[in-house]
Amino acid sequence: MPNYFDNPKSKLDLFRQKMYIIIYGVNTPAGKAFDVGLLIAILLSVFTIMAETVEGIDHTYHRELIVLEWIFTIIFTLEYALRIFVSKKPLKYIFSFYGIIDLLSILPMFLSVFIKGSHILSSFRILRLLRLFRVFRLIEFVEESAKLKVALMASRAKIMVFLYTVLIIAVLIGTLMYYIEGPENGFTSIPKSVFYTIVTLTTVGYGDMVPTTALGQFLSMLLMVTGYGIIAVPTGIVGVEIAKEVRKSIGKEKEHNKLNGIVCAHCNKEGHRDDAKYCYSCGHYLNS
Amino acid sequence: MPNYFDNPKSKLDLFRQKMYIIIYGVNTPAGKAFDVGLLIAILLSVFTIMAETVEGIDHTYHRELIVLEWIFTIIFTLEYALRIFVSKKPLKYIFSFYGIIDLLSILPMFLSVFIKGSHILSSFRILRLLRLFRVFRLIEFVEESAKLKVALMASRAKIMVFLYTVLIIAVLIGTLMYYIEGPENGFTSIPKSVFYTIVTLTTVGYGDMVPTTALGQFLSMLLMVTGYGIIAVPTGIVGVEIAKEVRKSIGKEKEHNKLNGIVCAHCNKEGHRDDAKYCYSCGHYLNS
Amino acid sequence: MPNYFDNPKSKLDLFRQKMYIIIYGVNTPAGKAFDVGLLIAILLSVFTIMAETVEGIDHTYHRELIVLEWIFTIIFTLEYALRIFVSKKPLKYIFSFYGIIDLLSILPMFLSVFIKGSHILSSFRILRLLRLFRVFRLIEFVEESAKLKVALMASRAKIMVFLYTVLIIAVLIGTLMYYIEGPENGFTSIPKSVFYTIVTLTTVGYGDMVPTTALGQFLSMLLMVTGYGIIAVPTGIVGVEIAKEVRKSIGKEKEHNKLNGIVCAHCNKEGHRDDAKYCYSCGHYLNS
Amino acid sequence: MPNYFDNPKSKLDLFRQKMYIIIYGVNTPAGKAFDVGLLIAILLSVFTIMAETVEGIDHTYHRELIVLEWIFTIIFTLEYALRIFVSKKPLKYIFSFYGIIDLLSILPMFLSVFIKGSHILSSFRILRLLRLFRVFRLIEFVEESAKLKVALMASRAKIMVFLYTVLIIAVLIGTLMYYIEGPENGFTSIPKSVFYTIVTLTTVGYGDMVPTTALGQFLSMLLMVTGYGIIAVPTGIVGVEIAKEVRKSIGKEKEHNKLNGIVCAHCNKEGHRDDAKYCYSCGHYLNS
Repeated sequence: MPNYFDNPKSKLDLFRQKMYIIIYGVNTPAGKAFDVGLLIAILLSVFTIMAETVEGIDHTYHRELIVLEWIFTIIFTLEYALRIFVSKKPLKYIFSFYGIIDLLSILPMFLSVFIKGSHILSSFRILRLLRLFRVFRLIEFVEESAKLKVALMASRAKIMVFLYTVLIIAVLIGTLMYYIEGPENGFTSIPKSVFYTIVTLTTVGYGDMVPTTALGQFLSMLLMVTGYGIIAVPTGIVGVEIAKEVRKSIGKEKEHNKLNGIVCAHCNKEGHRDDAKYCYSCGHYLNS
Repeated sequence: MPNYFDNPKSKLDLFRQKMYIIIYGVNTPAGKAFDVGLLIAILLSVFTIMAETVEGIDHTYHRELIVLEWIFTIIFTLEYALRIFVSKKPLKYIFSFYGIIDLLSILPMFLSVFIKGSHILSSFRILRLLRLFRVFRLIEFVEESAKLKVALMASRAKIMVFLYTVLIIAVLIGTLMYYIEGPENGFTSIPKSVFYTIVTLTTVGYGDMVPTTALGQFLSMLLMVTGYGIIAVPTGIVGVEIAKEVRKSIGKEKEHNKLNGIVCAHCNKEGHRDDAKYCYSCGHYLNS
Repeated sequence: MPNYFDNPKSKLDLFRQKMYIIIYGVNTPAGKAFDVGLLIAILLSVFTIMAETVEGIDHTYHRELIVLEWIFTIIFTLEYALRIFVSKKPLKYIFSFYGIIDLLSILPMFLSVFIKGSHILSSFRILRLLRLFRVFRLIEFVEESAKLKVALMASRAKIMVFLYTVLIIAVLIGTLMYYIEGPENGFTSIPKSVFYTIVTLTTVGYGDMVPTTALGQFLSMLLMVTGYGIIAVPTGIVGVEIAKEVRKSIGKEKEHNKLNGIVCAHCNKEGHRDDAKYCYSCGHYLNS
Repeated sequence: MPNYFDNPKSKLDLFRQKMYIIIYGVNTPAGKAFDVGLLIAILLSVFTIMAETVEGIDHTYHRELIVLEWIFTIIFTLEYALRIFVSKKPLKYIFSFYGIIDLLSILPMFLSVFIKGSHILSSFRILRLLRLFRVFRLIEFVEESAKLKVALMASRAKIMVFLYTVLIIAVLIGTLMYYIEGPENGFTSIPKSVFYTIVTLTTVGYGDMVPTTALGQFLSMLLMVTGYGIIAVPTGIVGVEIAKEVRKSIGKEKEHNKLNGIVCAHCNKEGHRDDAKYCYSCGHYLNS
């Protein structure tokens, strides 16, 4: 395939070039409009799928919802085809992260012709929103995401230690609770007791399983206070990493700025105290 | 309308001037008393409305509560009229944020004559409390609010990224939970599953919907630990922003102290640049 | 009353002096033993009172528990009398914070002779533990407490703004939820709805009231995410205050150790002490 | 016992030497494979035990699960014997922390021959995972753990003060709630009320006990907001400690710019740059 971008040879090439800017670009009004339209279409299509699972709504509007879903699917299919068509390297797009998500967000609907109910999986097309970060003030957002990501990566090891600890606590206390409370109090198996332990440790507290023995209640109280306390650990970890990131970028901005910018008429040095009358370097009077 | 403030021409003008200081001011004893009285009236009126919705209380004291509500409404109506009357620019007040709230806090009661039950909306007059921050140590409070606001605004982008992520997680995991648990276990629709996901992720955990399948419980545990962990993100973000604000104000206090302690042999001034050769104050050579 | 401490004139005075050191002091072995004994007595007496409210235990051991309670009460009464007797200024002790708590921790039991059940209030004697901080490594503890207290006091205004905001949110959203859900869904009154709002905002989530309408669920989700997010505010506030306290104490330790940027005229090295007269590197006089 | 490590005299000694490197070492491929294998065996054995407590699974696969458990127990027993056999100081290993855990993780299964059901305690062998931190990027992990540990130890006193406060609040509010709500509303005893208080304060919120009186609900709301607020305390504490640890390690990277403690032989001044050859104060040669 000739590189139609640098040497558009036909009207088709020109069209592809134009579409490329609209679909992949974000800086032109048309490109922005495309992205905003896509954003709305994705949200509406997800709401449509959700609505269909609500019995009351589905009962009354089943026909309309199915039609709407097909419309959205056709729109996204056309968009997918267009993306491939105008892409510089179609294969690279198809097998990219976003390319796969784009495909997965239209497949379930077509599959639903053969497998009933599978179109519900279309709600995974919410993932397409990831790409649309760029619609609202692109750079700031991506930068912030990057900072968060760097902070999380930097504390990867600490987070692993934390999760490891949570796992060990969950199995140990889960087993103990199973022994203490037993199936007669709703702790019917160790996995369920582990579930209870995690529910309690993370302070979620569904209340579907509740200890009834004195010992079980005492252990649970310890668990709650522990959970309440160790929430400090991830908070502290991420907080510190973010703080480090922030400090770095502040550090870069400062560096100067401590002294004023008045230039000595005699020796051309700058960077005097704000209340300086004489040049620190040559002793000349600063008649600024 | 002549500006009655600078040139009060009649007794009425003098009255308006006096009232203005009482109603809008806070520095005179009368102004403070007015604000405290208003604060108490607002709280009592809100409690009255609340009490009326409690069946036990309403059954016994319905008549008294209605009378009380009318009294409060009349007080606030008079106050509203007075505010307009003494205001320098009445229209500006009427269409200001607080002006609209003041109006909205009396309207429901009058509407209740026509539409039964609408007076309950009067409890929105709790918003009037916003203005009364100034009653207790005005400046400190407003400053703190401003700092919090600056901190929140500065981390706006980070918060958006965070909410975006929560939204995507909620829809994805909600759909999965709907598939895994299904209507037979109480996950009757995707919106309800999304509700469950948010309830779990934020560690609220009502317990009205609880996973019963092994896979659903496993996924929920992941969700809880995630929720427990990512609470660190907003905490870290806001914490860092507040820290930056604090550091700035500390920074302003320092600002001095950067300069060294060399004393000029001629004028005995100290606090020169570290690399200063001449005194900034008298131009004398600094042979330290 | 003569000051028996400086001039013990009788055997009784000597006894009082000795007891004073044991009861109020903490540095002698006897003083420590007294404090530890008191700590154990307080905890045991609180457990006794608690046990009495558990029907199963009370049914079997009612007699024994009552006897135990009287024993503890007599011990604490004797201790109270002794404290007054040996105190330098008995009245000051009696009306001090701890003096009142000591009295309140014995009164309920005597009252129970006249008013049945009032002895349960004896469990408030847990407050006596406050005094016993000093038993385990006194100074460190008190210092830490003081730091926490300073940090909390410093962020008093921020905390007030925060609570004010929580109050306003609770009343507003509570009223809305009452309107949206209504008594038919368990939101029987505004106070109950406010209770629900606080339960949700603080991520407690009992689950006794749960929204069933779509709008109610949507509003609740917003509330949860808000609650999940604004937990960052107190965390950030207190964290920053504690950090400031820590930084201050670190700051005091540093203070020296900074190097200036003066360059030696002979060897061109820079980074001398601020008070350096000679180059650290070549020994040349630094006439900068 | 001759030290067979330095002077292996027989084939057996050579075998022990080899096995030692595999079992206790981590740097050889064989050592790593052993650790990974052990990790998988531990997890699988724990899952087996858990599965056995799930009635549905146990009913169908009871025989297979018991066989699997015996296989894992025999493997771990052999491993335990091997560890003793190849250890340089077998007794030191046997009574070490990990030695005891290794023994405890095989004992319950053998005990189950005599005491039915005791093999469930085998799930405590999850603790063996602690040793396997080293499998994945050893040094980083251990370092992070150490940092967390140092941070937690440093804030030991603050944490104690915090727990002490939680204990006192729990008993006080628990007693009050028992009085306010009473057995007729599910608050059947003070211990149960204390349990409720901890459940609420830590924002777990099972919902098995819920206040029904106005006063109880009001007190609970205060408790929730308090709990929601004081979560900031551990978060702040640990966060600050972690921040200090991080700052220290950053500090070590700097390290230049700090002055050493060498004393000038001529003028007795100390605090020279580490690379100083001459005294900054008198210009004398520093022949430290």
